[in-house]
Amino acid sequence: MFDKNIYISRRKKLKELVGDGLILIIGNSESPMSYADNAYNFIQDSTFLYYFGLNSPDLIGVIDVENDKEYIFGKEFTIDDIIWMGQQKTFKERAAEVGIEKFVESEKLEEVLEKAKLKKQIIHFTNQYRIENSLKISKLLDFNLDDVNKKFSKKLVAGIIEMRNLKKDYEITELEKATNVTREMHLTAMKNVKPGMKGYELVALLEAAAKKYNATTSFHTICTTNGQILHNHFHGNTFKEGDVVLLDCGARLENGYCGDMTTVFPVSGKFDSRQKDIYSLLIEMFDRAEECTKPGVTNKFVHLEVCKVLAKGMIKRGIMKGNIDEIVNIGAHALFFPHGLGHMIGLDVHDMENFGENNVGYDEFTKRETQFGLKSLRMGKELKAGYVLTIEPGIYFIPELIERWKKEGKFEEYINYEEVKKYLDFGGMRYEGDFLITENGNRRLGDKMPKYFNEIEEILKNNN
Amino acid sequence: MFDKNIYISRRKKLKELVGDGLILIIGNSESPMSYADNAYNFIQDSTFLYYFGLNSPDLIGVIDVENDKEYIFGKEFTIDDIIWMGQQKTFKERAAEVGIEKFVESEKLEEVLEKAKLKKQIIHFTNQYRIENSLKISKLLDFNLDDVNKKFSKKLVAGIIEMRNLKKDYEITELEKATNVTREMHLTAMKNVKPGMKGYELVALLEAAAKKYNATTSFHTICTTNGQILHNHFHGNTFKEGDVVLLDCGARLENGYCGDMTTVFPVSGKFDSRQKDIYSLLIEMFDRAEECTKPGVTNKFVHLEVCKVLAKGMIKRGIMKGNIDEIVNIGAHALFFPHGLGHMIGLDVHDMENFGENNVGYDEFTKRETQFGLKSLRMGKELKAGYVLTIEPGIYFIPELIERWKKEGKFEEYINYEEVKKYLDFGGMRYEGDFLITENGNRRLGDKMPKYFNEIEEILKNNN
Repeated sequence: MFDKNIYISRRKKLKELVGDGLILIIGNSESPMSYADNAYNFIQDSTFLYYFGLNSPDLIGVIDVENDKEYIFGKEFTIDDIIWMGQQKTFKERAAEVGIEKFVESEKLEEVLEKAKLKKQIIHFTNQYRIENSLKISKLLDFNLDDVNKKFSKKLVAGIIEMRNLKKDYEITELEKATNVTREMHLTAMKNVKPGMKGYELVALLEAAAKKYNATTSFHTICTTNGQILHNHFHGNTFKEGDVVLLDCGARLENGYCGDMTTVFPVSGKFDSRQKDIYSLLIEMFDRAEECTKPGVTNKFVHLEVCKVLAKGMIKRGIMKGNIDEIVNIGAHALFFPHGLGHMIGLDVHDMENFGENNVGYDEFTKRETQFGLKSLRMGKELKAGYVLTIEPGIYFIPELIERWKKEGKFEEYINYEEVKKYLDFGGMRYEGDFLITENGNRRLGDKMPKYFNEIEEILKNNN
Repeated sequence: MFDKNIYISRRKKLKELVGDGLILIIGNSESPMSYADNAYNFIQDSTFLYYFGLNSPDLIGVIDVENDKEYIFGKEFTIDDIIWMGQQKTFKERAAEVGIEKFVESEKLEEVLEKAKLKKQIIHFTNQYRIENSLKISKLLDFNLDDVNKKFSKKLVAGIIEMRNLKKDYEITELEKATNVTREMHLTAMKNVKPGMKGYELVALLEAAAKKYNATTSFHTICTTNGQILHNHFHGNTFKEGDVVLLDCGARLENGYCGDMTTVFPVSGKFDSRQKDIYSLLIEMFDRAEECTKPGVTNKFVHLEVCKVLAKGMIKRGIMKGNIDEIVNIGAHALFFPHGLGHMIGLDVHDMENFGENNVGYDEFTKRETQFGLKSLRMGKELKAGYVLTIEPGIYFIPELIERWKKEGKFEEYINYEEVKKYLDFGGMRYEGDFLITENGNRRLGDKMPKYFNEIEEILKNNN
């Protein structure tokens, strides 16, 4: 939790941006696993965390803009709670720590809302991603459940995104910590991988590396020797001599800030020559992104620059042919790089994705494309100093996709399918880091990570 | 997943028990953390897993009892899915592996239900613990959301509990595996604890021990030096010389079967004499439970026998006074043991608790008590061969509870508050194992666990 003045000034700014009515921000409840009392680890709604700081279930924050009042609604601990849970700071005390004087029992929320309705105040709320929170809103505001995600306040959502997009120094400090825990997860995996190991054995070690810092994983870890399968959550494969592991994982600090990195590394400690060759092209793409990423350019531009490096490299290797600009323009390279270059990161690993990808990653000047590949780019808009985002190019040989395109004769003038065939057993590679946009360019967060293949091999050299 | 004949015969038995209408069993969906695409690890509904075996989200099982038809409804993979997720067995193939020939697209479910409604078939469903599943039922059957958990089928729930209560050999094999992974989590913690360590550092190691077997934790681990705080999920304390760690954790195998154990062990490797003294009484309680636990007695009886051992031990130590039977009858001992002796365990760590504790742990012959302490006993009813349950006595000195009772003058004739005062800094201890009820008695599941204080100290002897 930050100093209370941070929360006070965040709410003040939000009041100015929204300008009228009353703002309702719903905190998360516990999510039951297999019965009500056995819940997943609690994850607070990131917007609630941002403006109200308290990391406990069943709280609702209210900012009455017009009457300049702020509340947190919840349920205070009873003496019985204390007996089972030990001495606790009261919620009243904890609310005061984030600058809220009015901690009020939940039942009173309806009264406050009734008054606002009588005065015809606008009640602003955000769109919801958990059905129980939609239900709360539908009950509080007498909406049909299906209407909640239609009637949300676009002004409120825009204001929140505008503020959360720009990371302050004290947030960057936390994101840097999250990146360093993430780094340690990757280095732990690299230093322990060996043939015969199961994916989940490696995951066990890297999750423990996060937990040592009281961090969890910011999303479901991808740890696979089939990197070409993009949505791959399976950890049951046994690593073999010659395999390359693709590891995409990140830490989520107790305070919510997230890291996200991808590395690839050879199970046996050394890349073979073909792996080295494609990996080098991947890092050329990454370096090009790093070179282009700065305020004033769009991330879509950076993405396309990276695609040109890919197209050029594929032509050089005889896998593609023709003109680089034409290839990238028509999207033929996306056979090998079907996803986007990156996404915003902050209190969510895809920061604020609950508000809709396009609301975070696009604006009136940069619209989302529909072309295969480019349509998967989450972050397209112009970069500004203070943004934190990932750079994560990939090169994949996806047999099912290659087969489909080949059958359709798709982009035959640019793709040398005979040559592609030789890579059907290759798999896929991705490399990812987290970057802050600075005044003049960018800065990769965290301590130095191995990147070039010799740096990777150096880390693995004592494994066997 | 078991052999398909197991699922076929389970459904056959359930059909016989329910006898009419159509049975609707809702599988779980993904639970989002902070936006829709970032979900917690998927946990399938245990009843769906029991009858339909498939561990994937968004499936619904239907058993049409009257027309002897069985279906799984869901969404088959598309070619696009295969491109992003790799080659997959189709749901049709996977359904066939659990003996279901009819894997049908979800949209058709309404048709099947409409037909049943026209024929005035009863549609049986269970009460729900996830709001999204209640919503599904409310939409499918045109109920008010609030009515779903009122209009559920008591006959169906009773049939499921009757079947799942009695564990078959192939389930006991899995529960034994879960217990052994749980055992390894505990031994790992014991062998690595030392002064200066943070709680979460120990949790990191024991969760990795589970993950090595592709298992997760079956509930939120309790790992604390404040064992007297019963609902204690905080892992941030630093272990000190002289502290005793209370560790309550368990493994959940990938197939759903759970383990659950509690141990206590001294941070510095040796219990002090007072810790040894109270720990010895705790193990007397545990041993008494083990002695009494057999078919034909109620678990309430076993609980009360254990309470007598506690009362006797407390009298011997000058902490309580008076007649043992009176103490236990009036519940004065519950100051030191305010929870129940144990609970059923299976595919849920509190098995089937989603159906209501009383429906699983009590019956027409054994009703739940309201007395403090006894009211927290989850499992009270008569034991039968095939039940698997935990035995977990505890001894706690809870300052807030002691203070409250003392102020009220509660049970002054049985409690020597002056003597209790000396233990206000003691904390709390619990010891827990998982037991199968056999034809003649019981069997503790898993390989031998250290229990007596010298066995515990033996495990820790090389820690420093």
